[in-house]
Amino acid sequence: MTTATSTATSTQIHLASRPSGWPTHDDFRVATVELAPLQPGEVRVANAFISVDPYVRGRMNDVRSYVAPYALGAQITGGAIGRVVASTAESLPVGTVVLHQHGWSDVVQADASTFRSVPEREGVPLSLSLHILGMTGLTAYVGLTRIAQLREGDTVFISGAAGAVGTAAGQIARLLGAKRVIGSAGSPEKVRLLTEKYGFDVALNYKDAPIREQLAAAAPEGVDVYFDNVGGDHLEAALDVMNDGGRVALCGAIAAYNTDGPVPGPDNLANIITRALTLRGFTLAAHLDLSPEFGARMTEWFAAGEIAYDETIVDGIEHTVDAFLDMMRGANTGKMLVRVGS
Amino acid sequence: MTTATSTATSTQIHLASRPSGWPTHDDFRVATVELAPLQPGEVRVANAFISVDPYVRGRMNDVRSYVAPYALGAQITGGAIGRVVASTAESLPVGTVVLHQHGWSDVVQADASTFRSVPEREGVPLSLSLHILGMTGLTAYVGLTRIAQLREGDTVFISGAAGAVGTAAGQIARLLGAKRVIGSAGSPEKVRLLTEKYGFDVALNYKDAPIREQLAAAAPEGVDVYFDNVGGDHLEAALDVMNDGGRVALCGAIAAYNTDGPVPGPDNLANIITRALTLRGFTLAAHLDLSPEFGARMTEWFAAGEIAYDETIVDGIEHTVDAFLDMMRGANTGKMLVRVGS
Repeated sequence: MTTATSTATSTQIHLASRPSGWPTHDDFRVATVELAPLQPGEVRVANAFISVDPYVRGRMNDVRSYVAPYALGAQITGGAIGRVVASTAESLPVGTVVLHQHGWSDVVQADASTFRSVPEREGVPLSLSLHILGMTGLTAYVGLTRIAQLREGDTVFISGAAGAVGTAAGQIARLLGAKRVIGSAGSPEKVRLLTEKYGFDVALNYKDAPIREQLAAAAPEGVDVYFDNVGGDHLEAALDVMNDGGRVALCGAIAAYNTDGPVPGPDNLANIITRALTLRGFTLAAHLDLSPEFGARMTEWFAAGEIAYDETIVDGIEHTVDAFLDMMRGANTGKMLVRVGS
Repeated sequence: MTTATSTATSTQIHLASRPSGWPTHDDFRVATVELAPLQPGEVRVANAFISVDPYVRGRMNDVRSYVAPYALGAQITGGAIGRVVASTAESLPVGTVVLHQHGWSDVVQADASTFRSVPEREGVPLSLSLHILGMTGLTAYVGLTRIAQLREGDTVFISGAAGAVGTAAGQIARLLGAKRVIGSAGSPEKVRLLTEKYGFDVALNYKDAPIREQLAAAAPEGVDVYFDNVGGDHLEAALDVMNDGGRVALCGAIAAYNTDGPVPGPDNLANIITRALTLRGFTLAAHLDLSPEFGARMTEWFAAGEIAYDETIVDGIEHTVDAFLDMMRGANTGKMLVRVGS
């Protein structure tokens, strides 16, 4: 176990400028800062894994959103998991594994109340609490159940299906009784994984042909639930094939995150009226009450070997921006993570 | 009272060709047909008023929708009200006022089961059953209550506000406790009517300046409920100002009905996610169960003098297409109706 004295500095990723369109390395700065002595009630945590997530891109813009934008010159925050290496808080002794939102740094130090302890379980990697067993899995579960009101026998389409949320959503949809699960992704390898590892009935490579044509061919009986991680042409394709009374959970619009200026929406929104569709956007913060229900079901599914996952791991805090940019470009399969330390 | 012998022919409007973009008179044909002798259980009805409605435009296209497209060479159907002039059905004796969906003709003859009798009430014009007391009022009520889940204190925006559904929606929103009601329309006269007659707090003329700018200025505290009769730039404007958890009832997209080919959608759909919005399309057929509840409340409001309305009346079955085209262009204030006979 690392000791407190060995971690008196923190290497952090700061936002140097607000990206216009695609972020570049110039928009970030790696800073190494001295950590102050621990105050009463504080803990110091050596991160093991850092999560890089699409929503982080939105917070780099100075616009109204559901979370405040990052300040210029300040550290990028987000989900991470690590181990307490120094503590003045009885609740979180040295050695405790903790989840937190302090984000992109190798060592973080803050009030104990901003960390949540995670029980260590034999054979369950720590990193899973950052995705399939954590927020990512919960996002998929909330989107399918509360937002899209998935019913047994539904046909489900999931875009960005090889991403962390997508692979979780595909499997959860199946476990909740979906009749047919269709996914889209951007490479032959991902498409193969979707059908071979994640149980999708059909997987479409959107780079092969317009997704609108591919989806129409893949869903001759229409789609009841669309879990949207992409927006843009994928939403348009889904609106073409939604069945009457269909439900769309809007979880992400990665297609629009890095465009410089607004992008027109789908040309077929009138289908929302004629087919009595419901489109509902969500972010996780308002639905954390489903966390216990999700935790109970996912623990059972996971223990029964029903849940597959992939991780794409980048080593070293100094490569966090690479990991983030690669994730935005779709270079990852499953959850993109930065591994910190050894 | 007219007698059966005086109505042995029917003048009808038939669909001659499927319009591409804006319909023209060439797409329709006026036909006068001999009526067969009444079969047992049939009634013959002399129409008093015919309703011309935006959704009719959609049925002229040969595409999948919530109702089947009109057949070429067949009569245009839709809401109408008239009086039984001949009957072999005990349930509907001569003189009974009836509502029906047989549509664009001066005289209609069919099985009695396809007509619904309407009680005549002193001082209540027959025509109101075709709009504020009928389907139009119910559409506004369903959209606000079941679809948009209007709550007391909400700020409401209604596009196409000077139309039949719009004027009903504005008044019902107020009666259900909306704090602030904003409407849009396309002429200075309509805008004045909205504030002076229909109780809108603010009315915007979308021809004066981009609706996006006007609405942002008119709704500094945002909008909780948007009742969309227009789509296009109006939906985009609303998405800009919707408050977190806001609800959009998509009732019409008249902006897109007569375009030749698809039109791009709003460029700000990502707000659906970040603000956790719900967009729900609807057509009335699935919500007729709310009819008794609406009828009870509207009767009370109407009797109390709380409900204003306007009618734009075109005389003569042969001018039905003019009325329809004028309505699509927004030439009407309130409900557009064709008056048949004297």
